[in-house]
Amino acid sequence: MRVLDLTISRRSVRRFRPNDVSLNDIAYILEVARRAPSGANRQPWRFLVIQDHGIKRHIRRICEEIEKEFHQRAEPSLKRWMEARGITWKKPFLTEAPILILVFGRIGEPYWVESTWLAIGFMLLAIQELGYSTLTYTPSKTDWANHLLEVPKQYRLQVILPIGKSAESIQPQDRLPLEEIAYLNKWGENLRVENP
Amino acid sequence: MRVLDLTISRRSVRRFRPNDVSLNDIAYILEVARRAPSGANRQPWRFLVIQDHGIKRHIRRICEEIEKEFHQRAEPSLKRWMEARGITWKKPFLTEAPILILVFGRIGEPYWVESTWLAIGFMLLAIQELGYSTLTYTPSKTDWANHLLEVPKQYRLQVILPIGKSAESIQPQDRLPLEEIAYLNKWGENLRVENP
Repeated sequence: MRVLDLTISRRSVRRFRPNDVSLNDIAYILEVARRAPSGANRQPWRFLVIQDHGIKRHIRRICEEIEKEFHQRAEPSLKRWMEARGITWKKPFLTEAPILILVFGRIGEPYWVESTWLAIGFMLLAIQELGYSTLTYTPSKTDWANHLLEVPKQYRLQVILPIGKSAESIQPQDRLPLEEIAYLNKWGENLRVENP
Repeated sequence: MRVLDLTISRRSVRRFRPNDVSLNDIAYILEVARRAPSGANRQPWRFLVIQDHGIKRHIRRICEEIEKEFHQRAEPSLKRWMEARGITWKKPFLTEAPILILVFGRIGEPYWVESTWLAIGFMLLAIQELGYSTLTYTPSKTDWANHLLEVPKQYRLQVILPIGKSAESIQPQDRLPLEEIAYLNKWGENLRVENP
């Protein structure tokens, strides 16, 4: 399958079916991430795979507390955007998805945030290729993860990727057209292509 | 080709052949980027494709000035790492690659750096799929790009991706083994997989 087809069929998904996800598939996704380039090849990423249901429940409870607070103080425009999409403080995917992959970045490595998110981009395409869905969920606070999961403090949680089979109907993708985001030689100058 | 195979065969490349790169191929790469997820779907990325040789020369001259300064004040360990890889202040790829894609992120959008680099991850796999090579080159200063290329100041240069056919011999990939970067349920606990 072409990379473009993977990105066309991909959606962020918030509801998952309980079907098992094999650790072989998780290892495939991590093998993809492992090969990403990084600043000075420091490979600042670490991956904590959570399969244990008790730990997932714990993570969900903490995240929902954080999100309740966040939704109360969110600015009106973001609040409206979230409401329109049915995004609330509730994070059922944190226990419904059979697997969570928590991605951490090592603070202070050169381009550690950039490198880690580049690797997350790789992972999303591998997840799609295997027929799973996910969501890039970053709780608005992350310190709790170091305490709960005994993660050394030089690593900061960047994202939680719930992995599983989608239980959602396919939503259309809502993106700006290429003409509005890509220019040729000069800002604002259209990139004209014959057969895009 | 599987996503894993794309990441296994991919290398960061600093020397390019002069063979043309079609704008259709560039549009494919940007169509892939365009479909990446982003914080609150704000799509904070913009892409400036540079094909004009005069502009590329200008960019190279400025970047090399910046890098001369950077290499002078770089800390010893990074300096040694760069020297071992033959990385100097010289950036010939900025004029040798037939195309540069400058990726900008819109400052202040939710998770704008993270989202932009996730999209860059998508792009790297599309570039590899088309048989081209690239390098994620971020100059240590970026303000000049706004002036030189008349880019609105709310957008910040995140990376320059030179696109072309590699003129380098294949180097082995140097990455940590999976056991050192991925854990199961508990930090430090090995993710054991039967057929990785």
